[in-house]
Amino acid sequence: MIFSSAEIGYLNDQELGRLATVQPDGTLQVSPVGFRYDPDTEFIEIRGMNLARSRKFRNVLDNGRVAFVVDDVPSLQPRRVRCLEIRGPGEAVVLDAARANEFGGAVIRIKAERIISFGIDDPDQGPHELTPHNRNVS
Amino acid sequence: MIFSSAEIGYLNDQELGRLATVQPDGTLQVSPVGFRYDPDTEFIEIRGMNLARSRKFRNVLDNGRVAFVVDDVPSLQPRRVRCLEIRGPGEAVVLDAARANEFGGAVIRIKAERIISFGIDDPDQGPHELTPHNRNVS
Repeated sequence: MIFSSAEIGYLNDQELGRLATVQPDGTLQVSPVGFRYDPDTEFIEIRGMNLARSRKFRNVLDNGRVAFVVDDVPSLQPRRVRCLEIRGPGEAVVLDAARANEFGGAVIRIKAERIISFGIDDPDQGPHELTPHNRNVS
Repeated sequence: MIFSSAEIGYLNDQELGRLATVQPDGTLQVSPVGFRYDPDTEFIEIRGMNLARSRKFRNVLDNGRVAFVVDDVPSLQPRRVRCLEIRGPGEAVVLDAARANEFGGAVIRIKAERIISFGIDDPDQGPHELTPHNRNVS
């Protein structure tokens, strides 16, 4: 198991993640994306309308470099931030060429190699007592 | 004016942004950050406790490559995503060496060169009628 059960619950509950990619000229891009955790492969999967035509998809095809983060602010008083960052190679795949630009015809898959986890396994600790659960998982 | 008044209002209203940086070995990092829009310089400013010791600060010192995004989901039925992505060089500055690891002793500043804006200037249009307001601003 790469992710803890609390982390898997968190991934299943959150609406959006943010995917960072690198353009061929070396400049960065970051954008909100819908996503799904696949319990069989333990990959993060990103789909979407017109994904195969998107700049992020072409960036991943070009160089496979990605980082992905899911976070939220579950409390303002005291202010708490929860965060699960996943680093590792990304793979851009066209699953069905005839439907590449429909939802599900293309996918970006992320295989975690390093995880930065903060505030997810310790929901009841004070914000200043939290320690990140950082680890390599590859 | 780099940003529209609707975009400035959006930046002022949102709690978190996400900052993507590149580590010296070329791998990407992305994490949630508090931020402030500075109306005088039109820069995005990122501060935080221990910022000067953070990996993201050292990444920006190393190569200055950043991308930053603010987004939210204001409606689920129909599902709407608003998004303001800012690309441009980042600068990592220690403002007060004696207080570098306190809040405000160090800052990452982002100067927008390209803006990807979606759903912010047209709050009443249907999700499928929205067009991105993308432009170079440098």
